[in-house]
Amino acid sequence: MTYQKKINLSTKGLTDIIDLTSRVADILTESKIQNGVVIIFITGSTASITTLEYEPNLVKDFQEFIERLIPRDKKYHHDATWGDDNGFSHLRASFLGPCLSIPISKGKMSLGTWQQIILCDFDNHSRKRQVIVKIIGE
Amino acid sequence: MTYQKKINLSTKGLTDIIDLTSRVADILTESKIQNGVVIIFITGSTASITTLEYEPNLVKDFQEFIERLIPRDKKYHHDATWGDDNGFSHLRASFLGPCLSIPISKGKMSLGTWQQIILCDFDNHSRKRQVIVKIIGE
Amino acid sequence: MTYQKKINLSTKGLTDIIDLTSRVADILTESKIQNGVVIIFITGSTASITTLEYEPNLVKDFQEFIERLIPRDKKYHHDATWGDDNGFSHLRASFLGPCLSIPISKGKMSLGTWQQIILCDFDNHSRKRQVIVKIIGE
Repeated sequence: MTYQKKINLSTKGLTDIIDLTSRVADILTESKIQNGVVIIFITGSTASITTLEYEPNLVKDFQEFIERLIPRDKKYHHDATWGDDNGFSHLRASFLGPCLSIPISKGKMSLGTWQQIILCDFDNHSRKRQVIVKIIGE
Repeated sequence: MTYQKKINLSTKGLTDIIDLTSRVADILTESKIQNGVVIIFITGSTASITTLEYEPNLVKDFQEFIERLIPRDKKYHHDATWGDDNGFSHLRASFLGPCLSIPISKGKMSLGTWQQIILCDFDNHSRKRQVIVKIIGE
Repeated sequence: MTYQKKINLSTKGLTDIIDLTSRVADILTESKIQNGVVIIFITGSTASITTLEYEPNLVKDFQEFIERLIPRDKKYHHDATWGDDNGFSHLRASFLGPCLSIPISKGKMSLGTWQQIILCDFDNHSRKRQVIVKIIGE
């Protein structure tokens, strides 16, 4: 049995980090699937999905770390291709990846208490985003 | 058809790296599933699952690299939140990610000879950990 | 229902980046699965699968970034183990990961227009590679 819903949302870009956990949990409840796996996937090449304890200080650490790792104010060859100055956004997204798979047991995701599902929008401007939540199971 | 087992284990923390391959293979054999996918997921926000050739020198390289990338002896905003001084552990875990999906064919995982499934515990002290092994297939 | 095909290809190594999107899309069409998930997995410990806008300038950015992050001309302990001088390849592969999961809806993957599936071969010489494409759905 499979079930799919899309989460539509607006982001501010520049490593905007959004907690998706309760929205994914609601879709899981709605699906009535008790046992299986949920795949969370972001369509697009400048955003990622991962897990993080969603508290403001750690979110700030995450943003500072990614800025140090792949700085925005560096020259990227990609910026010469389309002129949209978001080479750094693509690299960040590619590195963190677009997908996450979480087991489901007794109708619940196997997340820890401090383990939230996050969307990271690395683009350099606000965006409309669509996250795919696909559930496979029984 | 789905099958799930938990692997319970104790870790030493501080980038303790544990080879889970044979334990996952045993669960797959037990499940009798011949064809599908196995999802390995770590519950918790300071540990990760990935693959690595599990030999002592490469494990040391991995530990040194992650220490250089996200140093332990740096100040993190998160450390002001709970006072448990593990901001670096959270960042490492978020970056490497909590899950891994491996195809199954003829009752075996499609791993390479030098490709082991590893749990990386980044927390700053020893922990009891629970790894979820979920198999979906036929 | 499950379906599996292997993609066999030759790579040049040294962060050779290959676009797999159309080959995966062809396998999906062939499978006739309309709804589910496709798992793309690279067997081996010196290569990875992720997504990237596949255009030459961004590919160059990606190659330069990974070279800066985990340099080839550094000493790695692993190089003392087998003498094959590819410690850097293993670390890069472990860090980016071997797998990718993409939802399928109406017989199509939920990829963005600029979001291609890539194989990154980090090994230090040319290789024969086998990518597993596993589709689960209905």
